[in-house]
Amino acid sequence: MALVTGAPIELPPLVDHHCHGVVRRDLDLRSFEAFLSESAAPAAPGTTFFDTQTGFAVRRWCPPLLGLEPHCPPERYLARRRELGAAEAGRRLLRAARIGVYVVDTGLPGDLSTPAELAAAGNAVAHEIVRLERLGELTADTCGTTDADSTAEATGTAGAAEAFVRDLAKAVRRAARTAVGFKSVAAYRHGLALAPEPPAAGEVARAAAHWLAGRRTGARLTDPVLLRHLLWTAVGTGLPLQLHTGFGDPDLRLDQADPVLLTDFVRATADTGTSLVLLHGYPYHRQAAYLANVFPHVHADVGLALTHSGVRAGAVLAEFLELAPFGKLLFSTDAYGLPELYAVGAEVFRDAVRRVVGGWVADGAWSQADAQRVGAMIAADNARRVYALE
Amino acid sequence: MALVTGAPIELPPLVDHHCHGVVRRDLDLRSFEAFLSESAAPAAPGTTFFDTQTGFAVRRWCPPLLGLEPHCPPERYLARRRELGAAEAGRRLLRAARIGVYVVDTGLPGDLSTPAELAAAGNAVAHEIVRLERLGELTADTCGTTDADSTAEATGTAGAAEAFVRDLAKAVRRAARTAVGFKSVAAYRHGLALAPEPPAAGEVARAAAHWLAGRRTGARLTDPVLLRHLLWTAVGTGLPLQLHTGFGDPDLRLDQADPVLLTDFVRATADTGTSLVLLHGYPYHRQAAYLANVFPHVHADVGLALTHSGVRAGAVLAEFLELAPFGKLLFSTDAYGLPELYAVGAEVFRDAVRRVVGGWVADGAWSQADAQRVGAMIAADNARRVYALE
Amino acid sequence: MALVTGAPIELPPLVDHHCHGVVRRDLDLRSFEAFLSESAAPAAPGTTFFDTQTGFAVRRWCPPLLGLEPHCPPERYLARRRELGAAEAGRRLLRAARIGVYVVDTGLPGDLSTPAELAAAGNAVAHEIVRLERLGELTADTCGTTDADSTAEATGTAGAAEAFVRDLAKAVRRAARTAVGFKSVAAYRHGLALAPEPPAAGEVARAAAHWLAGRRTGARLTDPVLLRHLLWTAVGTGLPLQLHTGFGDPDLRLDQADPVLLTDFVRATADTGTSLVLLHGYPYHRQAAYLANVFPHVHADVGLALTHSGVRAGAVLAEFLELAPFGKLLFSTDAYGLPELYAVGAEVFRDAVRRVVGGWVADGAWSQADAQRVGAMIAADNARRVYALE
Repeated sequence: MALVTGAPIELPPLVDHHCHGVVRRDLDLRSFEAFLSESAAPAAPGTTFFDTQTGFAVRRWCPPLLGLEPHCPPERYLARRRELGAAEAGRRLLRAARIGVYVVDTGLPGDLSTPAELAAAGNAVAHEIVRLERLGELTADTCGTTDADSTAEATGTAGAAEAFVRDLAKAVRRAARTAVGFKSVAAYRHGLALAPEPPAAGEVARAAAHWLAGRRTGARLTDPVLLRHLLWTAVGTGLPLQLHTGFGDPDLRLDQADPVLLTDFVRATADTGTSLVLLHGYPYHRQAAYLANVFPHVHADVGLALTHSGVRAGAVLAEFLELAPFGKLLFSTDAYGLPELYAVGAEVFRDAVRRVVGGWVADGAWSQADAQRVGAMIAADNARRVYALE
Repeated sequence: MALVTGAPIELPPLVDHHCHGVVRRDLDLRSFEAFLSESAAPAAPGTTFFDTQTGFAVRRWCPPLLGLEPHCPPERYLARRRELGAAEAGRRLLRAARIGVYVVDTGLPGDLSTPAELAAAGNAVAHEIVRLERLGELTADTCGTTDADSTAEATGTAGAAEAFVRDLAKAVRRAARTAVGFKSVAAYRHGLALAPEPPAAGEVARAAAHWLAGRRTGARLTDPVLLRHLLWTAVGTGLPLQLHTGFGDPDLRLDQADPVLLTDFVRATADTGTSLVLLHGYPYHRQAAYLANVFPHVHADVGLALTHSGVRAGAVLAEFLELAPFGKLLFSTDAYGLPELYAVGAEVFRDAVRRVVGGWVADGAWSQADAQRVGAMIAADNARRVYALE
Repeated sequence: MALVTGAPIELPPLVDHHCHGVVRRDLDLRSFEAFLSESAAPAAPGTTFFDTQTGFAVRRWCPPLLGLEPHCPPERYLARRRELGAAEAGRRLLRAARIGVYVVDTGLPGDLSTPAELAAAGNAVAHEIVRLERLGELTADTCGTTDADSTAEATGTAGAAEAFVRDLAKAVRRAARTAVGFKSVAAYRHGLALAPEPPAAGEVARAAAHWLAGRRTGARLTDPVLLRHLLWTAVGTGLPLQLHTGFGDPDLRLDQADPVLLTDFVRATADTGTSLVLLHGYPYHRQAAYLANVFPHVHADVGLALTHSGVRAGAVLAEFLELAPFGKLLFSTDAYGLPELYAVGAEVFRDAVRRVVGGWVADGAWSQADAQRVGAMIAADNARRVYALE
């Protein structure tokens, strides 16, 4: 539907509190297209991932940044992108996003740019978020092999478990010295219907022994006791904890990622001083906003929900803004792989704020000063406070 | 988003079929703010409940009613409110709401105005809704202590249970002589996944004995058998039964308040002649509307969902109006504590009807006469019919 | 809300991939009204099903097709309809829908027009979808009574089960020669929380024996093992499989029809070459769109969700279009009983596309060429590809 343009809302440089590295190499049409969807498989015969809101948003916002007309065919866009080279195209796209701070989840595999590289390309500052499950897997890959623990293998399963638990505690403490927060993808590994309290030490030891016995290097951590142990170890650091909720790739069972399933964990962590940040949430984003409304330490993120809904980002943002207190909602792009997703995530967010919040001002429902203030809170201020940036 | 103004829809004085008393004393900023959220805790450090849709709606609609400009700072508003005094401010706010009939849930503790006081202050008529769980608790507090039952304590647990069940039946019958309906908060006490049929007498006696043994005065009723017994005792009176569904304070687990969980209870009560009214529903309000669509004795309420979504009330109302038959949707404010919430609840509702329904008229999708008629149904006529008012 | 009219989107003749026959006889007000709701009971006292979005949409779009003014009273409309006769009124209504192809679910009982009759009245082409559960019931009604199997009864329960399984396989193969797909209403019969894998032959035999023993002719098939057997037998044909999800009549428990419950079945069928089409979905249509996004062989349908939400069809369509790839969403009317529902389903869809997608063009978010192309995909092209029409 065509909308009357609302009052202009000026936003500060964005703090992107949830994003990932970008691919360094040049991409052809097929490998580019794969990043437009959360699907693990190629598009169905007769269809293309370019024919999605994400694809249309890329074709709307990105070609002009590389000197082409909006909505040009994907082939032309990819040709121009290769002509410039991935590095130069990436630089242009990242800088156009006007993001001042990247808070980068470094837990994805693949040849992706580091936070420092992102910062340099985007002329911004970068911080790190450490993904707990990956930290657990890396610890399992290496524990018992470092100096002090070199005898662990000899001491058998119980010894290996003990070494793992000890090394994991160390790894979390070490990460907490440089990272600004942790992230859990327990939603993918088991679903969010986890027992809320921290597992007892004996339980953790048994679960670790069981998992490590016969584990091959690189195997995923899916044991619910270990997932809970990771969550509570992170909570112990006092740093903010991001939790994946809602949609994502097909590994996940959507109903097991409903943020409401975290309610008892939210209650159990209420007095720990740790902030919880519910990522994405869609299509359960109203539920995430509700939790942010009634629990002081819970926050909600608009990331994937906006970037992947394109022209509908305003409608989805407005739904978040029904119950989410304005001091509890955080902008992100959830960009991954393509610098285009940074540009798109930032543009659809700014466009959504301008239309939705600006529209409320035009209607007399909100004052211009309040709208400006709330825009800045979601765009940057809330994230600065939650992650204690600067 | 800015919207073209629709055709004007004239609404009659409202029937507010679900509301509560207001605080009699003057309020300072902090105690006022606490009523703007369903949270049980103070706002998170660095945030305020004024920065919510409810807070912004109060700042939009209420200052002009006390002689101030819209959107003025909370401090100035509270100062003006104290200058007028809680009684005078309350009178102005309540009368501005243009509510003709209050149907008041009297089951909340605290120093709140009575239905008669509300009626006097608001120049309106008031009726009472009796909250079942509180009636059960009050009965437990006093049973065995009134004349005929004074020997109950002496007769032991079984005798106490028997006295409780008998006194409860009396209390419900007595309430039914003056109240226009009952309300259940089983969603808070156990969740809505209750067995649908009435519990057998023996079950009720055993559950009552178990609950009463060792119970301290004031302790809450949470036993699922007793909750079901309360529901079916109320159904036996033939009066409408309100059921809390959807969001509310953090006592509740949201997914356990999905109105769809009541489906089997809805089926079990289909031929009793009792009307069920599903309160709130949000974010499961489309589910509530569906139940109202396919079951003749089910109705849906817009209350909390509109008052707490402020400028988004039109969007939420429109979602209700997808499946809810127009003769099955009821206006309420769910106001509690603050007379401001009456004014806001009424204004956001009128504004939502004007925009949404008026917009459909402007588009040629609805006729003006139909829009007028449907507006009056939701505003007042449906509640008059369901609660047999006048 | 009143909306600025978007850019015009020209749509080709529609392919209605999910619809049913219409009643042949003249209808009076009460019998007409019953088709406006999914309720099994008459409207509640004091209300009418005409006061619903479906009712208002019929009153908006249909009277002009029979020479009356829009929004005229139901009585006048019904009088005019009888004056023309059901056949002539039906012809006018069907032709106004500009549907080029009907894909008709023939599994509903009652005196309804056949696909061929629909095609003749609507000047269109018709194809058939075979409802699995009804095929199973008809097979049970007749198996053991046809020539080759005439001794089945004599051979006892095990023999009857064997004959049923064999006859069912034949019936499915036979249907696959003429039908363009199958449909399952397992959501109504058991709910969608079915074990995902095909049941073993022994399990099927035991379940069939149990069901057939003492079964009366016409009794419904509700056994979960047999429901799964039907699904997998259909998958074996390679034809598209429609699955009822989301709202429908009150037989169904809504939460048991959430399409997300099909996730494991979706995974289990990923490599079979069979397309799954999730019908309706509402109010879980965002979940259906998500499944269509991440699984190549999953498609989503807008049918009932648009026809029954009337003026809100644009809003619901827009929610589908957040995650559903544009090559995976299919138009349908889900019309049943009334030719009016064909006209309404087609008009609300065209109106929704014009407003929503046309609005995006007017905003510069989509190009006109893309909008035109996506409109044609949803209106007709996707269905042609999925069902291999022509």
